[in-house]
Amino acid sequence: MDALDWALKEGNFGAYVAFGTSLDPNILYLSRFSSTDPVLYIRRPGEKGEIIVSQMEYERAVRESSATVISRSDAGFFELAGEEPDPWRVLARVILRQVEGSILVPPGFPYALGAEIAGKRQVAVDREILPAMREIKTPQEIQYIRHVQHVCDRAMERAILLIRKAKVRKGLLFQGAVPLTSDLVRSAIHQVFVRNGCIPGETIVSCGEDTAMPHRRGEGQLRECEPIVIDIFPRDQRTGYFSDMTRTVCRGEAPAEIAEMFQAVRDAQDLAAGLIRPGISGSDVYRAAVDFFREAGYESGTRGFVHSLGHGVGLEIHERPGLSPSGEVLRENCVVTNEPGLYHPGTGGVRLENTGVVRKRGFSSFTRFERRLVL
Amino acid sequence: MDALDWALKEGNFGAYVAFGTSLDPNILYLSRFSSTDPVLYIRRPGEKGEIIVSQMEYERAVRESSATVISRSDAGFFELAGEEPDPWRVLARVILRQVEGSILVPPGFPYALGAEIAGKRQVAVDREILPAMREIKTPQEIQYIRHVQHVCDRAMERAILLIRKAKVRKGLLFQGAVPLTSDLVRSAIHQVFVRNGCIPGETIVSCGEDTAMPHRRGEGQLRECEPIVIDIFPRDQRTGYFSDMTRTVCRGEAPAEIAEMFQAVRDAQDLAAGLIRPGISGSDVYRAAVDFFREAGYESGTRGFVHSLGHGVGLEIHERPGLSPSGEVLRENCVVTNEPGLYHPGTGGVRLENTGVVRKRGFSSFTRFERRLVL
Repeated sequence: MDALDWALKEGNFGAYVAFGTSLDPNILYLSRFSSTDPVLYIRRPGEKGEIIVSQMEYERAVRESSATVISRSDAGFFELAGEEPDPWRVLARVILRQVEGSILVPPGFPYALGAEIAGKRQVAVDREILPAMREIKTPQEIQYIRHVQHVCDRAMERAILLIRKAKVRKGLLFQGAVPLTSDLVRSAIHQVFVRNGCIPGETIVSCGEDTAMPHRRGEGQLRECEPIVIDIFPRDQRTGYFSDMTRTVCRGEAPAEIAEMFQAVRDAQDLAAGLIRPGISGSDVYRAAVDFFREAGYESGTRGFVHSLGHGVGLEIHERPGLSPSGEVLRENCVVTNEPGLYHPGTGGVRLENTGVVRKRGFSSFTRFERRLVL
Repeated sequence: MDALDWALKEGNFGAYVAFGTSLDPNILYLSRFSSTDPVLYIRRPGEKGEIIVSQMEYERAVRESSATVISRSDAGFFELAGEEPDPWRVLARVILRQVEGSILVPPGFPYALGAEIAGKRQVAVDREILPAMREIKTPQEIQYIRHVQHVCDRAMERAILLIRKAKVRKGLLFQGAVPLTSDLVRSAIHQVFVRNGCIPGETIVSCGEDTAMPHRRGEGQLRECEPIVIDIFPRDQRTGYFSDMTRTVCRGEAPAEIAEMFQAVRDAQDLAAGLIRPGISGSDVYRAAVDFFREAGYESGTRGFVHSLGHGVGLEIHERPGLSPSGEVLRENCVVTNEPGLYHPGTGGVRLENTGVVRKRGFSSFTRFERRLVL
């Protein structure tokens, strides 16, 4: 009896229904089945969930999934497909056959399917139950995320070694005779990821003025005495979990303004790490960072500290709780990032990001990697 | 004036609206903007589309997107968020502000958002227009997919070299002293991908009986004289396009049954390649393969040829048209796979898969890699 069971019974729902691929975090969370082709997940109150998969996936699903597995033919797909050419209508009819009463779906449930069902049954959107379940991590999930963070630490080490060992000529970084570019560092990071079974995200390796835009991916040759922001967030292909990490470094002397920003960001990160604990709200931690930056002479908003202080991490790279103006109360065994940053267009940006778990005694970081600006 | 414009005018829609991340192929197709955080896309008839992004993404979006870029604050997000705590309702109100009249959405549009809008406006699902637009590739798109296929060819070469150079001891493959496993070959493939800016899919490297399940990922040490199926489908991180490729090999002598299956699959692939041309339906090509296999003594259905003959490839790994029982008519400049396979539980499976473009004169394969069973 989990929170979903309670909610289904209390709301008098016939079932929770989701449809998507392995990229759908709710399906992966509930069924532990990862598939490139879409699967239908149905969970009736008091029952183990079931997934409906193609014949071709059937045996693999039986071996891998925690849910009951039903083939599309046993669920009546092909029979219904003979009567109805539209595949969304076929899916809707399968669901209506399998479920009695009203249906609860995730917010991202396909509209084509939801609207079809809503013509015949009440369809409600789950804004709360799955997000709240997924927010509190089990020891197994914590181990999965910690593992990804260890891979991140190794990848960051590799990237920073490349920058540290680079030759400098006329302010530009070289690996031997070859220009050391964002792409080259990114590729080295990604090689560490895939050797460890992780899939790269849209890794950032930006340099100089580009670092003032927090989501700029970065391109071109890296330069001496300018900030280099490295932000990595791979996903473990086996488990589906993410971790998230950022470091800012500078090969050679850092501009004074960047060095000051780095100091403020590091202090803000320490401050936040000291505040994070069960019971405090994410918005309070965020506001403490804003206040700290203000006292240090930095704005928040469109310049300075322009993003939130952190976010939950799990089967999505950004999930609850947020360390943001609207951030929820932090609970024990949440996994969150702690990532203050400062951005000055024309000069550059600095960001430091650790991922860790909220324990009774406070924030326990998975990230072990040093925070050092100058290489 | 493209097909979407026509459809919007003809259907008297106020706009086509999509919401999602860079993994949403329709948003990527229409806006050419790739983002980890979700973006809202709005296209009114006769206008260039617009994307609404967070402040943090604004400058990058202006540089990278083909659409008009509006920040969330300019679109009134924060003002509305003050009145309404639910983020889906805020999004719905932004859309209702930006669009007059009825709204067309893709099938996968989030139900939470669609249902909110449907309370106030007519919401229709586009089952046809975007899929049909995306089906016919531009020369640029064809070049993108061909590029990914070249990366696939290189990765396959690397994988097969590992298997060819392996030492065999007691029927097991070794790389020096280390067991040559599925994971090791997969990792070598993924390293080629990431060095070339591609993100791995759920790469299959399966051996022996496992090959009889077409979607089994494969695990453990590779063995001599057993079929090894290698199926790779990376995505180019810069462009978002996929390609798809499979080879089946055998280190040492192949079992007679597998060798015969390989011959039949290769002949079926040649047959299909000769049939594919503009005007023929995907279902006719599929049925020709079924007939060919039957005459060669192989079933289709739950054993033998268990999957479709091919599928469109583009910003999704599986898109239109299908070379399947319900396959659409093939049109010039479609990109499709040609992938016959035979699967005998207890023995193993064989699959060969090329990706190519449908030209006036027929199928032009991007895949150049040889088809040879025995290494």
